[in-house]
Amino acid sequence: MENLKLFLLALSAAGAVGFVAIIFVLRWVLHFKEGLAWDGGAAEFNWHPVLVVTGFVFLQGIAITVYRLPWTWQCSKLMMKFIHASLHLIAFTFAVISLMAVFDFHYYSSIPDMYSLHSWLGLTVVIMYALQIVLGVGLYLIPVTPLSWRAACMPIHVYSGLFLFTSVIAVALMGITEKLIFGLSNPKYKDSPPEAIFVNVLGLLLVVFGALVLWIATRESWKRPSDQIMHSLHTNSGGEDSARDGPALSELSGGAEAETDDVRRRNKPDNQNY
Amino acid sequence: MENLKLFLLALSAAGAVGFVAIIFVLRWVLHFKEGLAWDGGAAEFNWHPVLVVTGFVFLQGIAITVYRLPWTWQCSKLMMKFIHASLHLIAFTFAVISLMAVFDFHYYSSIPDMYSLHSWLGLTVVIMYALQIVLGVGLYLIPVTPLSWRAACMPIHVYSGLFLFTSVIAVALMGITEKLIFGLSNPKYKDSPPEAIFVNVLGLLLVVFGALVLWIATRESWKRPSDQIMHSLHTNSGGEDSARDGPALSELSGGAEAETDDVRRRNKPDNQNY
Repeated sequence: MENLKLFLLALSAAGAVGFVAIIFVLRWVLHFKEGLAWDGGAAEFNWHPVLVVTGFVFLQGIAITVYRLPWTWQCSKLMMKFIHASLHLIAFTFAVISLMAVFDFHYYSSIPDMYSLHSWLGLTVVIMYALQIVLGVGLYLIPVTPLSWRAACMPIHVYSGLFLFTSVIAVALMGITEKLIFGLSNPKYKDSPPEAIFVNVLGLLLVVFGALVLWIATRESWKRPSDQIMHSLHTNSGGEDSARDGPALSELSGGAEAETDDVRRRNKPDNQNY
Repeated sequence: MENLKLFLLALSAAGAVGFVAIIFVLRWVLHFKEGLAWDGGAAEFNWHPVLVVTGFVFLQGIAITVYRLPWTWQCSKLMMKFIHASLHLIAFTFAVISLMAVFDFHYYSSIPDMYSLHSWLGLTVVIMYALQIVLGVGLYLIPVTPLSWRAACMPIHVYSGLFLFTSVIAVALMGITEKLIFGLSNPKYKDSPPEAIFVNVLGLLLVVFGALVLWIATRESWKRPSDQIMHSLHTNSGGEDSARDGPALSELSGGAEAETDDVRRRNKPDNQNY
């Protein structure tokens, strides 16, 4: 792996920040709030942030980065797919239970459901996450799915996976904002009591965790080697247009050495290209 | 360009959704709220969402996609860089004025500054956006910057650009949440008055706009052709490790035709790789 030290640094940082975020959300509900229970009251609501941070954010982040771990590259791709899918399924289960906690709390407290932008986006993200899992299993784990379908849908699978992960964090930040405004009355959120500062820091931790996971997931050179080759084949299959301003790399694969050197010379990066 | 029709569809959709979002934010402040003024009151605050949506979200989105427009591929890269940088600079100016509106409103209304997670993340994003512009201009517009620096920093420039754009939308969604809770009193946000529904829809529009811009920006085959070649050179330069499980595409560039076919055969995608 290229830049193995940097990868390990980014991975450790993501793990550490994610772990600290879990500690923070637990301390929030156990120390500042009413604790945890399943009684229809405020302590039941508290399962919502706890399950979202541990499952929908942290576990989903782990599920996304699992293919990048170089020590798993000896394992079969199929096994890694099962681990990837299982982690997402656990994250989804956490998300569903976290929603049940909120709906239950709203029911017992006579608070209307689904009025806020947080709830609209949150429910949309959970539904689309379920769809992503169903389609992902159908396409990449059921052996009969044609290879052409798998290949065609892979860019959408990757994009929507990363987009949903990012959206979950954005929705969590909106949820934190809502809860701090509604939950702090004397002193209020604007008076910056310790709980407000503490939970704002939790929000920052979620953003940093998301940034690290997205960085790890989108580095081409950190992909599982077989996936790097797949990406190169995709990139270099090129359309006619990609060769218009000069031969694309795709031409290199079929060419002899002299041609290759010629193309390399013509493609030599200059300041204008960057 | 590969899939030109799909590109034009995505671009038109992004433009349309962004335009509708601007109409929505204007209708919000002009119809539901106190209008626009620069008097230290609520109408001055209203410049904040208007300038964020038009500048920091919409113009930044345009700045990000500007290299993808195929009809600009005839123009020099340097000219496109100036357009890219200028649009970001205008977006930044909008963001700064939008902050001034809030600080001014807080000052006259005796509301504390910088207590919410929205304000913490918002100010951080604006500061990092300024840094991104300064570094971007220093690296890619000042002619003396060494090519090696430009190349080394490009992945960071692209990543942080897209990350900041995403963060701006997330922070805007938090801002909408705050404003609807504080701004609606009789009926309240939870009673879903028309303004609440209307502004929730504005939030959805911002998410869809962000999703479209991120999709357009991250499609490899929609990049400016010279940039595609740069990407291929990067991807195929490969480390030793990338060839461990089988020859990487990088090896193809130096090989003769027979070798190429052999490598292709060995790299032939199978179901396991997807």
